Amino acid sequence: MPVEAVIAAAREFLGDRITTNAALRDHHSHGQDTQPPVLPDAVAFIENSEEAARVLALCYAERVPVVPYGAGTSLEGHVTPVRGGISLDLSRMTRIIDVSQPDMDCRVEAGVTREQLNTHLRDVGLFFPVDPGTAACTIGGMAATRASGTNAVRYGTMREAVLGLTVAMPDGTLIRTGGRVRKSASGYDLTRLFLGSEGTLGVITEIQLRLHGIPEAVSSATCQFNTLRDAVETVIAILQLGIPVARMELLDDVQMAACIAYSKLEGLAPLPTLFFEFHGTPTGVAEQAAQAEEIAAGYDGRGFAWATDPAVRAKLWQARHDAYWAAMAAKPGHKGLATDAIVPISRLDEAILGAKEDIAASGLTAPIVGHVGDGNFHTVIMVPPEPDGLARAWELDKKIVARALALGGSCSGEHGVGIGKREFLEQEHGAAALAVMRAVKQALDPRGVMNPGKVFLN
Amino acid sequence: MPVEAVIAAAREFLGDRITTNAALRDHHSHGQDTQPPVLPDAVAFIENSEEAARVLALCYAERVPVVPYGAGTSLEGHVTPVRGGISLDLSRMTRIIDVSQPDMDCRVEAGVTREQLNTHLRDVGLFFPVDPGTAACTIGGMAATRASGTNAVRYGTMREAVLGLTVAMPDGTLIRTGGRVRKSASGYDLTRLFLGSEGTLGVITEIQLRLHGIPEAVSSATCQFNTLRDAVETVIAILQLGIPVARMELLDDVQMAACIAYSKLEGLAPLPTLFFEFHGTPTGVAEQAAQAEEIAAGYDGRGFAWATDPAVRAKLWQARHDAYWAAMAAKPGHKGLATDAIVPISRLDEAILGAKEDIAASGLTAPIVGHVGDGNFHTVIMVPPEPDGLARAWELDKKIVARALALGGSCSGEHGVGIGKREFLEQEHGAAALAVMRAVKQALDPRGVMNPGKVFLN
Repeated sequence: MPVEAVIAAAREFLGDRITTNAALRDHHSHGQDTQPPVLPDAVAFIENSEEAARVLALCYAERVPVVPYGAGTSLEGHVTPVRGGISLDLSRMTRIIDVSQPDMDCRVEAGVTREQLNTHLRDVGLFFPVDPGTAACTIGGMAATRASGTNAVRYGTMREAVLGLTVAMPDGTLIRTGGRVRKSASGYDLTRLFLGSEGTLGVITEIQLRLHGIPEAVSSATCQFNTLRDAVETVIAILQLGIPVARMELLDDVQMAACIAYSKLEGLAPLPTLFFEFHGTPTGVAEQAAQAEEIAAGYDGRGFAWATDPAVRAKLWQARHDAYWAAMAAKPGHKGLATDAIVPISRLDEAILGAKEDIAASGLTAPIVGHVGDGNFHTVIMVPPEPDGLARAWELDKKIVARALALGGSCSGEHGVGIGKREFLEQEHGAAALAVMRAVKQALDPRGVMNPGKVFLN
Repeated sequence: MPVEAVIAAAREFLGDRITTNAALRDHHSHGQDTQPPVLPDAVAFIENSEEAARVLALCYAERVPVVPYGAGTSLEGHVTPVRGGISLDLSRMTRIIDVSQPDMDCRVEAGVTREQLNTHLRDVGLFFPVDPGTAACTIGGMAATRASGTNAVRYGTMREAVLGLTVAMPDGTLIRTGGRVRKSASGYDLTRLFLGSEGTLGVITEIQLRLHGIPEAVSSATCQFNTLRDAVETVIAILQLGIPVARMELLDDVQMAACIAYSKLEGLAPLPTLFFEFHGTPTGVAEQAAQAEEIAAGYDGRGFAWATDPAVRAKLWQARHDAYWAAMAAKPGHKGLATDAIVPISRLDEAILGAKEDIAASGLTAPIVGHVGDGNFHTVIMVPPEPDGLARAWELDKKIVARALALGGSCSGEHGVGIGKREFLEQEHGAAALAVMRAVKQALDPRGVMNPGKVFLN
């Protein structure tokens, strides 16, 4: 059996770090999604780029699938080994290789988590801004899925945050892409080709990241609106004025009701609500706050409450980050299916109001949270514990994506394609562009060993 | 002859817009570089994406080279048809297809110039920030070379500015990449694969651009230093404090002497000088100005002169943009060879001071201007009108690049590889990464018709 040959050969240098232990295989059979779990044949815990390359070379020779695994927080089935093979676990690659304070950059191994990195950086006055809302996710996984989060409106996504990569190619070659410079016009942009390739072109083992100075002053606020449209119009006006808002999040009435109950938020009503955060100098933050408040008032925004106290701020944003769990707590016994559509900002009210109609028609519960500064919004569809529950949830997801595509949007703002969004790619990109993606895949992974069954249908 | 078959077939739909006129072929034989001109067999003036695709399909069938041509402002030989074939001129594709004020984006044809676009946008309060310093360059050419310029420190490069593309593929297929959304995790990032591919993978015919609001207040300043090191340390301190400077340019003593003479700048000495520009609210700009001045004072920065008067500002930045012509005027009879190295910002003083030593050793004159917020700097090597002048200039360029690479930098910050920088790619990226770039080229342009002789040696 090819896979047994790989396991035997890898044991030569990994020892018991390659394992067929049932509990570990089960742990690596799924992410935090609703895809059916599939067991890998073995799990390999690698500790450096060279080991990744050696495992890949063996798998390439034997045509055995390889599925990279970080923290297992994927929401789209990325880590499920749908065709078996080796689950390549990078979670032990946790070295922060290098931090340069004057250059505001660092190089980390793929298994470093966002939280680990920011804890490490605090002493040098720097931070890594991309924040998908979960502390556990690895930088490697975030790079592989082109992740972003609540800070993206100001600091960008992994696309902007990553300066360079080390990648183990399917045949076991190690390459370095990009570098330490802020920009370059030298050669094809391989860095961004691998960002968002979801482990289908190679395994990202190291990441060079751009960092930012911790802002001198931070201020948060909430503002409540009568209608979703008023909230979205406020967002558009703020963006147009060029106010450098760091975070700007929308929670709908259903999500607010869940958050108020779960996070014991006081003084807030179950109404469409914007959460703001501003970064800058004390003067700058105060000015931004005043401008935003004035704009919101023009759309009947009420109860503008500014919080510069770190404890109050932390509670507010923890409530936002716990939105998923708040939604789950409101519907005991349900699972959650997160949608991830994104549209041009001017179409956000249509997309969200349309989604609310679809939700009502479906008979399901699905609160909405949105990174409105980007046009990206999530509905957490509560999957009822019934035989057809999951099918009904997927049907609703499809409607929400279809509307987003019709409005000039994309099926995924930040979670990636994985298994769940493959069927939308041809409609979104067109058959010709999808054929170019396939040609790249075929050129770089001619044996199809890298994370098969993801991104592309069949 | 294959090329005659192409010309005859293209004449069917282009009429006299495909031509073998000697003057036009001569005009399309070179850019603004020092590469030897080579005549194309014909020039095709296309007017839309479909015509680009039809010409490409003909050339693909007959294996005739195609070289995209915009404004001909390339500094690295990109538009020189080194193997003849068709020069595909996109300069008549000047339609601004669509502008969305609420989404702050637009879609343009590849032949639209930066100046044309910004003139068009002024009435809606928006602007396109990427500014390579020449008004004539086309958006298509800027996309193809991943261009940037003086604003990149705040607004980013074409990598950040482009949301999506229409590309005519080598076989004549038209694809659309990306879209209108601010971010997406849906599929491979084909947009950034084509940005900077210099016409070697296909022809960019339309570009979706992200725009920005015209800032409420703009303020400029100059500040002079005793040493380059003091100037660079000032820059690092400003970046670390997170001051959102819009432009921050360094001119060395030689360049300042040339600019003072050429642009009649008063009150400035031939010393290392920083040019600043800040964008924001009136309060914000004033605060940024005060902070920058305080930092500069700590490095003996003198003569801080703030200019909010648009006329004074315009004169100052015109002088900066005219640096190349000022350098040329200082050395009558010479040609200019512009270098484009970039290094991590902390190594900028070493890179520039080293370059100054190399310049001194070469016996040539070469003023320095730098986009210091990025670590990118240009020397304009004055090529003496002597038989070995160009060889001596290239030798100096090689030394400057070699030092930049040794300092962790790149051979090109923004001009691209073209012909002149091909020899550095293997050293910069490594043979394995270069092989991946070649694999992508081979997959998308298997017949090698797209801009042959660029990016890759042989």
